[in-house]
Formats: sequence, C-alpha cells, structure tokens
Amino acid sequence: MKGMILVIDGLGDRPVKELSNQTPLQKAKTPNLDKMAENGINGIMDSIAPGIRPGSDTAHIAILGYDPYTVYTGRGPFEASGVGLDIKAGDVAFRCNFSTVNDDFIVTDRRAGRIKEDTSSLIEKLNKMTIEGYKDIEIIFKESTGHRAVLVLRGDGLSDEISDADPKIVGKPPKTVYPTNNSHDGEKTADLLNKIIKESYKILKTHPLNLDRIKNNEPPANIIIPRGVGLVPEVEELNKKYGINSACIAETGLIMGIARFAGMDIIEVEGSTGSVDTNLDNFIDTILNTVNNTNHDFLLVNIKGADESGHDGHAKEKMEFIEKIDDVVFSKVSQLQDIVTIVTADHSTPIAVKDHSADPVPILIYGESVRVDDVKRFNEIDSVKGGLLRLKGSDLMNILMDLIDNTHKFGA
Amino acid sequence: MKGMILVIDGLGDRPVKELSNQTPLQKAKTPNLDKMAENGINGIMDSIAPGIRPGSDTAHIAILGYDPYTVYTGRGPFEASGVGLDIKAGDVAFRCNFSTVNDDFIVTDRRAGRIKEDTSSLIEKLNKMTIEGYKDIEIIFKESTGHRAVLVLRGDGLSDEISDADPKIVGKPPKTVYPTNNSHDGEKTADLLNKIIKESYKILKTHPLNLDRIKNNEPPANIIIPRGVGLVPEVEELNKKYGINSACIAETGLIMGIARFAGMDIIEVEGSTGSVDTNLDNFIDTILNTVNNTNHDFLLVNIKGADESGHDGHAKEKMEFIEKIDDVVFSKVSQLQDIVTIVTADHSTPIAVKDHSADPVPILIYGESVRVDDVKRFNEIDSVKGGLLRLKGSDLMNILMDLIDNTHKFGA
Repeated sequence: MKGMILVIDGLGDRPVKELSNQTPLQKAKTPNLDKMAENGINGIMDSIAPGIRPGSDTAHIAILGYDPYTVYTGRGPFEASGVGLDIKAGDVAFRCNFSTVNDDFIVTDRRAGRIKEDTSSLIEKLNKMTIEGYKDIEIIFKESTGHRAVLVLRGDGLSDEISDADPKIVGKPPKTVYPTNNSHDGEKTADLLNKIIKESYKILKTHPLNLDRIKNNEPPANIIIPRGVGLVPEVEELNKKYGINSACIAETGLIMGIARFAGMDIIEVEGSTGSVDTNLDNFIDTILNTVNNTNHDFLLVNIKGADESGHDGHAKEKMEFIEKIDDVVFSKVSQLQDIVTIVTADHSTPIAVKDHSADPVPILIYGESVRVDDVKRFNEIDSVKGGLLRLKGSDLMNILMDLIDNTHKFGA
Repeated sequence: MKGMILVIDGLGDRPVKELSNQTPLQKAKTPNLDKMAENGINGIMDSIAPGIRPGSDTAHIAILGYDPYTVYTGRGPFEASGVGLDIKAGDVAFRCNFSTVNDDFIVTDRRAGRIKEDTSSLIEKLNKMTIEGYKDIEIIFKESTGHRAVLVLRGDGLSDEISDADPKIVGKPPKTVYPTNNSHDGEKTADLLNKIIKESYKILKTHPLNLDRIKNNEPPANIIIPRGVGLVPEVEELNKKYGINSACIAETGLIMGIARFAGMDIIEVEGSTGSVDTNLDNFIDTILNTVNNTNHDFLLVNIKGADESGHDGHAKEKMEFIEKIDDVVFSKVSQLQDIVTIVTADHSTPIAVKDHSADPVPILIYGESVRVDDVKRFNEIDSVKGGLLRLKGSDLMNILMDLIDNTHKFGA
C-alpha cells in the first residue's frame, strides 16, 4: 500500500462577493474531487495551529511531520537546499541578491537591473574567495534564477544570531551586520559576513560580465547582499523517520528545497511553470508514472497555481484553475488502486487578502481503509461535517502511515 | 456522584466488507448503548494523538491522565506490577522468558517448551541469587503464567539504557547486554544482567523440576532471558492526583499492572478469561457491587474480548461479542443512578489490520449532568456528529472529574 499527500497550494479561501459569496473551491465544478470526498473521509486542517498564518515552507515542514518552530530557522537553508546545495546541520545559510552599488558603496539597484544573464560565471569567481583570518570556514555560493543566489558558510563556531545586510531601499550602503546577542560565534559570523560583502564587490566590479553590462548601460551585478540567515538544523531523514521511500513532485524551488532537505527524491515535471498555465497533463503523467512504475511508496505533490491566483486576487482564475486540476489530475488520481491519498492545501490564500491567511483548509482522505462519512463535496464549508473533524498538519503523516499500515505500535 | 470509565478493548474498527461495509459496532444491535448515546453526549477520541497507534498499556496510561511518553519507559515495569510486585520509582524491571539452552549455551527453545508446571519453585531458587560485586542490588524474580516471569533490580545507580538479551530466534546464545549510551550506570546494569543470566543457568540446570522435564523428554526451563527493560518512573497516585478512591476491574495482567502502578485497588472478576467467552454476568455483578456497595467513587473497567476478535480477524465474532456486552452489561449500566459513565475504547483493532490501529474510537458520556446532543447510535461513524467532537485520551479524567464536581477551579 502506498501513500500520497497532494497539496493544492493556497487552495483555501473566504466567501468571495463576485462568486455569489462562495469560495472559489465551493463555486468550482469539481466532480472528481467531490467523488473522492463522497467515498472518503473529510475534515478541515490547520497546517500549523488555529490562527497561525503559515508560509508555504513552514506549512510543508509541518505536513511532513517536522516541528516548524524547531526546523524553520530562516529562509536561507531552504533556498540553499532548493537550488541543489547539499547543506549540512550546522551550516549557516543565506538567500542573496546580486545588487548594484556605486563607487561610494551606495546601493543603486537591489536586484542589479533584474539581471537576466546566467550568473554562474560570477559565482565561479565568488567561490574562490578566501577571507583573511577565516581560512577554516568554507564559503559556498550558488546561483539561483535571475538576480538571486544563495550563500552557505560551513565550519566551526558559526551562528545565525546576526542581523540582516539588506538595506531594503536604494540610496543606502549595505547594512553592517552585527551579532544580535553577545555570543562570540555571532561576532565572528557577523565580522566574516561584512568582509564577504566587501570582498564580493572587489571580485565582481571588474568581472567581464559586469564591464559588458556597464557598456550596455545596465546596472552591474557588482555586489552580493545576503539576508534570511538560518542555521541548518539537524533533522531525521523522512525515509528513516517513517520507514518509507519518499519522493516529491513540486514546481517551486522552495518546496523542492524542503523535500531535498528532508532527504526525499525530487521528480521534476516538464513544462511546469508554478502558475495557472502549468502543464497539468505532464503533472498527472508524472504522478501516475511515479506511483505505478517506481518503488517510491510515499509521494508529496504540490501544485502551485491556485496560490498565485490568490496572491493576485483573481477569483475567477483561481476557480477555473481548480476546475482544470479536478478535470486533468483528479479524474485520474481517483482511479488509482492500492494507495491512500490525502488531498489538502498548505494554507488559504484568500482573494480578499491577496496573501496567506490562517483560515483552515479542507482535507480529504481517500482509499480502501477509511471510514467513509456523509460529506459529498470537497470545500471549506462542506468538509467541516466530515469524520476527521479538525486536524493539524503535523497529524497527517502519522494518520497516513497508520492507514497504509506502516507504523510501529507505541506500547503493547 | 461517582464516575466510571468503561473501556471496551479494541472496539474501534474500519468498514468491513462481510458486514456490508459497516464496522462491527455499527452493524451490531446495541439498543442499550444506543439509548445511552441518545441520552448522552458523544464524540470520537484519539487515546494518544491522531495517527499514533497505541498499545493497550500506553492508551490506558493516557486515559488515566498520565503522559505515556514520560511514564511508559518499557513493558517491564507494567508486567512486574501486573504480577503483583510492589515496584518503586528507580527500579529497573524486565519481562522474562524461561528458556532452554544446551550445554554450549545455545538457545534451543525460547519458551522452554511452553512449560505448564508452576514455576514458583524455580523462582524461589532464583530469588536466592547474589552476584559478586553487586551485593547492594536487590534481585527480585516473580513467576507469571506459563514460561513467563519478571525480574526487578532495585538499588542505586541502575539504568534502563541497555540492550536486549533476547536473541529472538533459536540456534543462538542469549545476546550479551551492552549499555546503549556511555553512562556508568548503563555499564553497571548491563554487566549485572549478563551475570544474572549466566547465574540463572547455573541455578536452574540442576533443579529437580528440570531434571524431571529432561527425563520426560521436555525442554528444561534452565535459563532466564530478560527483555522489555524499563525504569520505573515516579508518578503521582491516581487517588491523590484527582482526590478520589479508585478501583479497577480488568481481565489482563497488563491493565491490572497499570492500575496497581497508579495505586488503584484491583477487583477481580470470577470466571473472566480475557476472551469472548468471559463471564459477563459476573462482570456486571462486580461492577454493580462496586458501585453500589463500596466507597470507591471512581471505577476503571476493561472488557477485553472484542480486541481479541480484532486480532484474530473475526468480524462476526467481534460483532456478536459487542451485542453480548450491550445485552448483559449495558442494559444494567444504563440503569445506574448518581454516576457519570464514559464508554469508549482504548484503541481500534480493525478486522482488516488484525492489530491495533490509530483510527479514533467512539466515546459517549452518560449521566445527569451532560449536554445531550442529537446522536442516536454509538459507533465510529455516528459519534463524530456529537457534542464532544474530537478529544484526546488525556482529556477524559479531567472531563469526568468536572462532571462529577470533583475538581479545583484553576484561577478565581
């Protein structure tokens, strides 16, 4: 028996006026999800806790059975993992921008003109950086998309209790990083980071790519500004924690970063865009192929588009994308055999809020072993009447593992 | 006002095909339980937490208001308490098998031919054991049924962070016990245990009972192999914790062990077997007698048979035993006055799983003081719609004590 958690990112919503005071999910025609609700067990879920407004990252950390309050030390580690860096417990990781500073070291563009070129030649130079007095610390940069990059510091005596370098607005120099407590490790890490920022300018300002950009009247990517510091925590691998062979199918680096961090295999979907124009046909083919033709017995799937519509405040687009997922993906997921499937969201992204909210999300569990209740539709309102009542994200893996008979008894 | 928690062991289930996709409890005719549901308040309960698959022991520990993650250090202490040993906080306790080893110290029968004789004469000899260098440690054996026994070590500087001696299969010697961390106490306890195992062979191999067994071509019970180590934890007595005078009516040593460990009085039922052939007439007589004629004001009852049917995968037997409990026990429990009764299970034992599962169990509270909801049947599906919604086992004692007006206000 296999298990799958299928997360429709940002699915939850509040009543929307232009949808006759229904939620996009309520208003959407979803015959396949409704069939799964009717033959499954339903409820609502707070991915972290009632009233706690989750990020996609913290919600997924909770859904995978980890405590986000322990594991989520900052955005840096998950960005670093998301771009494919093999981070280790004890590393201190940052997300970075390539930015532009002028000769007076004043930031004139926080995103270096949203640079489109491949920045790997810049990264290559940065990775040769050594800082006097810190020869024992590994300094690892890696490019991400556009002006984005990550930085990982590896070595003894590092701390994430330091301030941010990002000035947030142009017209100011990068902020001097300082320790946020009085620890020696904080002082050391802050000092190192200040030197790395200055050194990055030295290395990048004369880089051929930047000389070309200046020639073309484009802002040079001549400095690295790190933010989102986090200490990479010690976590037990998901496969070990639950005795499974797990894989993740997702569209965004952030979710893939969390999955990679948990030691899951990452399966990419061709043509996925993270938006409502993503290739759902390839999505369902990848899901079916993984379930039917690999020895992965646990699958985490994240489809992103509905969240984007929520952030953009596009009710009809959100509703129509939900209908499309139902038609393309759930028409086939509902046919799968020998698998227990959980369908839910990581959080609500209400049209009215244009951001995540703490409203609980609907959840259904579908498979042979569940106690079928009398809920007939999958949405924020009907699901409340189901047999699961109100769960937390951290319950999901335990419940799923129990239903696929993959748990140890606690006691006798 | 008195209070009672009546646990129908392993009652919960999943839809069963041969019962037209109903659970055994759903399919069973239970007019008395249904009457209690109709006139009571209903819900579902996770005895430990959603998705956590409980043992009967850990579930009962939680239902009595203790934290199983703190209190349940291993099976040993509860087995020892179950056979009537007065264990104390700091003791290290084991369950043991009498086994058979050959002259090369290889285990040839892990259960000594499932020895039927009373082993108390073997225990008597074992209890005279002293180990050089450990004169300050009390070594206490006690027989249980058949090939089973318990061992308690009492003294300063003992630890339960040691490995298991049980080789699990025949053809190997008992495993050498080693400390699982680097503590001095672990090393000391492991060394002592290794010596006790060897000494048990010296004492038992020439015991008259064993010489007789050899003469009769039966494997001698010539060694003790301990397992299931646990450090006896410090717990507050149930009576003190809740200001009650408590008693337990149960069928198995494990449940009686937990009750005795919590300082409850144990009331035995004549003719109880722990199976579906148990004497339910005596059971209800004992309950009525305890409620009506003693000054016990809290009663924990455990009826075991349905769990056994679940383990055996016998759907119809489970259903019929539930009907019998309803007829014999609940016809009279539902007539009791001046008592608040909670009916629930410690865990589900689904026919399809043949073992415990984490599926929540139905719960009803019946008595003058409860808010009656509109649930009319007591089972896994209907109870969900009740006024209690979804509780945890650790909530029960507090709720019951409040309903019988036996709590202190927290605050002013």
